[in-house]
Amino acid sequence: MLFSKFYVPTLKETPAEAEVISHKLLLRAGMIRKLTSGIYTYMPLGLRAINKVANIVREEMNRAGAQEISMPMVQPADLWQESERWDFYGKELLRLKDRNGRDYCLGPTHEEVITDLVRGEVRSYRQLPINLYQIQTKFRDEIRPRFGLMRGREFIMKDAYSFDKDDEGVNASYQAMYDAYERIFTRLGLEFRAVSADSGAIGGSFSHEFMVLADTGEDTLAVCTSCSYAANLEKAETKPQPMCTQTCAAYEQVTTPGKHTVEDVAGFLAVSTTQVIKTLLFDVDGKSVAVLLRGDREVNDVKLKNLLGATNVELATPEQVVAWTGAPVGFAGPVGLSVDAIYADHEIAAGTDFVCGANAADAHLVHVDPRRDITLSTDAAPMGYADLRSITLDDPCPACGGSLTMPKGIEVGHVFKLGTKYSKSMNATFLDENGKEQVLIMGCYGIGVSRVVAASIEQNNDANGMIFPPSIAPFEVNILAMSTKDEKVMTMGREIHDWLEGQGIDTLFDDRDERPGVKFNEADLLGSPMQIVIGGKGLERGVLEAKNRKTGEKRELSVADWRNAILEWRKEVMKEWGLA
Amino acid sequence: MLFSKFYVPTLKETPAEAEVISHKLLLRAGMIRKLTSGIYTYMPLGLRAINKVANIVREEMNRAGAQEISMPMVQPADLWQESERWDFYGKELLRLKDRNGRDYCLGPTHEEVITDLVRGEVRSYRQLPINLYQIQTKFRDEIRPRFGLMRGREFIMKDAYSFDKDDEGVNASYQAMYDAYERIFTRLGLEFRAVSADSGAIGGSFSHEFMVLADTGEDTLAVCTSCSYAANLEKAETKPQPMCTQTCAAYEQVTTPGKHTVEDVAGFLAVSTTQVIKTLLFDVDGKSVAVLLRGDREVNDVKLKNLLGATNVELATPEQVVAWTGAPVGFAGPVGLSVDAIYADHEIAAGTDFVCGANAADAHLVHVDPRRDITLSTDAAPMGYADLRSITLDDPCPACGGSLTMPKGIEVGHVFKLGTKYSKSMNATFLDENGKEQVLIMGCYGIGVSRVVAASIEQNNDANGMIFPPSIAPFEVNILAMSTKDEKVMTMGREIHDWLEGQGIDTLFDDRDERPGVKFNEADLLGSPMQIVIGGKGLERGVLEAKNRKTGEKRELSVADWRNAILEWRKEVMKEWGLA
Repeated sequence: MLFSKFYVPTLKETPAEAEVISHKLLLRAGMIRKLTSGIYTYMPLGLRAINKVANIVREEMNRAGAQEISMPMVQPADLWQESERWDFYGKELLRLKDRNGRDYCLGPTHEEVITDLVRGEVRSYRQLPINLYQIQTKFRDEIRPRFGLMRGREFIMKDAYSFDKDDEGVNASYQAMYDAYERIFTRLGLEFRAVSADSGAIGGSFSHEFMVLADTGEDTLAVCTSCSYAANLEKAETKPQPMCTQTCAAYEQVTTPGKHTVEDVAGFLAVSTTQVIKTLLFDVDGKSVAVLLRGDREVNDVKLKNLLGATNVELATPEQVVAWTGAPVGFAGPVGLSVDAIYADHEIAAGTDFVCGANAADAHLVHVDPRRDITLSTDAAPMGYADLRSITLDDPCPACGGSLTMPKGIEVGHVFKLGTKYSKSMNATFLDENGKEQVLIMGCYGIGVSRVVAASIEQNNDANGMIFPPSIAPFEVNILAMSTKDEKVMTMGREIHDWLEGQGIDTLFDDRDERPGVKFNEADLLGSPMQIVIGGKGLERGVLEAKNRKTGEKRELSVADWRNAILEWRKEVMKEWGLA
Repeated sequence: MLFSKFYVPTLKETPAEAEVISHKLLLRAGMIRKLTSGIYTYMPLGLRAINKVANIVREEMNRAGAQEISMPMVQPADLWQESERWDFYGKELLRLKDRNGRDYCLGPTHEEVITDLVRGEVRSYRQLPINLYQIQTKFRDEIRPRFGLMRGREFIMKDAYSFDKDDEGVNASYQAMYDAYERIFTRLGLEFRAVSADSGAIGGSFSHEFMVLADTGEDTLAVCTSCSYAANLEKAETKPQPMCTQTCAAYEQVTTPGKHTVEDVAGFLAVSTTQVIKTLLFDVDGKSVAVLLRGDREVNDVKLKNLLGATNVELATPEQVVAWTGAPVGFAGPVGLSVDAIYADHEIAAGTDFVCGANAADAHLVHVDPRRDITLSTDAAPMGYADLRSITLDDPCPACGGSLTMPKGIEVGHVFKLGTKYSKSMNATFLDENGKEQVLIMGCYGIGVSRVVAASIEQNNDANGMIFPPSIAPFEVNILAMSTKDEKVMTMGREIHDWLEGQGIDTLFDDRDERPGVKFNEADLLGSPMQIVIGGKGLERGVLEAKNRKTGEKRELSVADWRNAILEWRKEVMKEWGLA
């Protein structure tokens, strides 16, 4: 592609609307333009990057035996009523009426449509398994669309749906998709992790999120340095320690004037924060619930919610704390506390001689032995102890006991064993080997195609702009002609451009009548992994200048043997991206 | 592709919902499935055909210098209010509100969005011309969605928009798109015509429709057998004949008891229907208007509407006829008629001695001379005469005087010089060579991508199924293995399949364990242009059987030299489709 014929409306200044780096750079590089909140036009350069991602996704889905279809964006309400999501799906589901007053929604996902399709086609186990996918525009009316392509309202997604006759089948379908996702993100040249996204996680998990690692990611992961364990922080299990076998002196109340926080109390009483019981009070679906943690730990809301099968978990208001404990905030404690339920994290069982609030102003208890002095609720957790805190770098890997790292990540894919959630409510059945009617077993598998482009930028950028992996780069090679007036330079540029394009290597030839500085800056901004600079002086010396956008490394390539020189250099660049 | 691994849910019976042949066959061949009225899922085979069309469209758009982008489907109302289409666009525009109550619509077309985009980017004439296109899903809430992919509500369209600085520029952009469209429909292997779709048609027209010829088409064309003239029937001009220079005896009233129709009156008075003036009464935006035609002609509503710049043209009700003429229906005539306006077709000026209604029950006038006896309205047409009838096979070509044919067609593309309609109302301007602000001049260019697939089936089918041109066929070659138990047959089939796919020729290998009859029938139904049958007996004789789906011609290809034999035969098949 000749730059002079290609529409790339770059911006010198970063638009104020952009908060994260990918959003800023996508706007500056003229890859996207905002139409309205969370809704973007993909410009020529942006569409190229999206299509690169989509094509790799398509190839690997096809290789895994999935078949491409395309489902409608406008979906009738009656299907969503059948699956019972019409009422339960929140405001993210954009509902509308047609000219005849019939209800529809814009598809945020396609479980209903695919289940309706397949129940109309599949009669017998002999037609199974089936895996159908699409790469299509979705709409989710996000409450706070932001970060450009990271969290838009209209976006491009690959969604696949598998249908199997039994558990063995769905497990195989799931594994095939998991493997395809590993190939996809590997081929895309991204650093990623597949993390367990199920609370019954280790071993036989049936939900994994694929995370692109980036310091700016919204998710935190727990990743083992020894084994393959990786989980979302919200889901990573902590390993229970052996229960403490000792006890301590009888508890007594001490005065702790104005000591509200764990740190204050520990300091005042000259104990470690690990010896303080933190008592957190929650309103769980209208009930008063106390959660006990070691003083240095953070509660994990998701684990609490899952433990209690709750819908709403909210920290108690100061008024509730006063009403429930009879004391101001900062002095709640579990001994003699009269709330609907009390649960403790496993670590509380592993210790004794704790300090905790006394449910009285300016007072704490010392010498508290949990097993002796605290009455826990045993309805939801054995003996009242459960995993209620977030994992930390101090914790051992829950799988192998090794040590953990906690990188940040951006979720770009999700594989999920749905089971019969939709097929049951929508009556999608087949006849098994014995002629008996059975419910189809489903899996669903998504990749945020447009988000992958943003995530790749979040992972790979510097002060000068984007740094694209060769497989996502709109143009793998950017040729910069230093002088458009030098016919030798232009001839060489065109020759290299035409030859590379002929080799199937997408190449942008900057043939514009612009100063070298402008071209260097824009080449860095646009982020092609390979830059080839052609200057009159270099040609006289018989060399081209090559720059690896990722490493910044520069070298000279021989003009005499430029085809081989470029291909050899390309192999090295590819290797740095982990690509063959 | 192996048929055994490909999801093609064919139907033995034609679903009752389908009216036209393409709809029936698309359903029977498992290419589409209905989700709800006018909204379809594209199944694997259907999506392949759509992508074949889309790719050819894309290649030719790129070749013509247009650049691909992708605009959102959900569009904010404020842009449509700026262009003043929010109120004027009828119920086809599906309006909706987001979670915050803001108004949006689903894009039926993208003039507003593209004009908004370009006005934000273009500052100077140096940035022009620009031509941006997309291949994208559109939504039009049709009052009566029907005919499968022919008139759906959600459909795939290519829409391009050009922006130029002056008239010369837009004409060049228009011509480039016109030429690209000719290349596209030629490469698609379709019989088509570009027809003038503008009333100021001949010569310098700025709107053309591209029609795929098919007996089942909803549009009628007027096509010259001598010159390149082609127009939509609604728009084809009739050539005025020389004005009659003679007159006739004074008119007189005669009794015509119960003779309401032109044929009855002509028979009763023993004159030709060409000597009768047909007087048609219309309610045009609330005014009474009479239109005079020769008795054997049909009025053309579109021409009348355009002549008067009217919004609503409706035939008068019987009550209006009685009120306006003082006579029952069937006896209206122009002599002494007191309506708001009277216009006559040119042919009325070319004759004399006419018969017409007398505005009295059971009475007509004879010996009527239009120029002497009828007072026409001269406000909208010179002397009151205009082109008000539809062209017929009797008429000469308005361009060269040659003779016409009138084939049926399906509109699949439209090129249109928009001018400043949107750029003016939306204030999309640029600075010209003199630093003066000017309004951008636009063109828009559409192709109904999914409709093209349906139109190709309407044009090419027989009792057994679809007959796809090689460039649209989901699979160009269909290999039929006559026995899956014969390892020689299967080996040969796989070898041919793999080799053809390696040549970039999409091939379906029917490796299913089905009877030959089933395979023959489905191969005809699915419509690959080339069928290759591999049987055990044929292999013993050293031959493969080849069938040209279009002509039905069968031949034997030598196994010994099968690669060349297939390629040679393919050249012949291509030639029959007009493809190189």
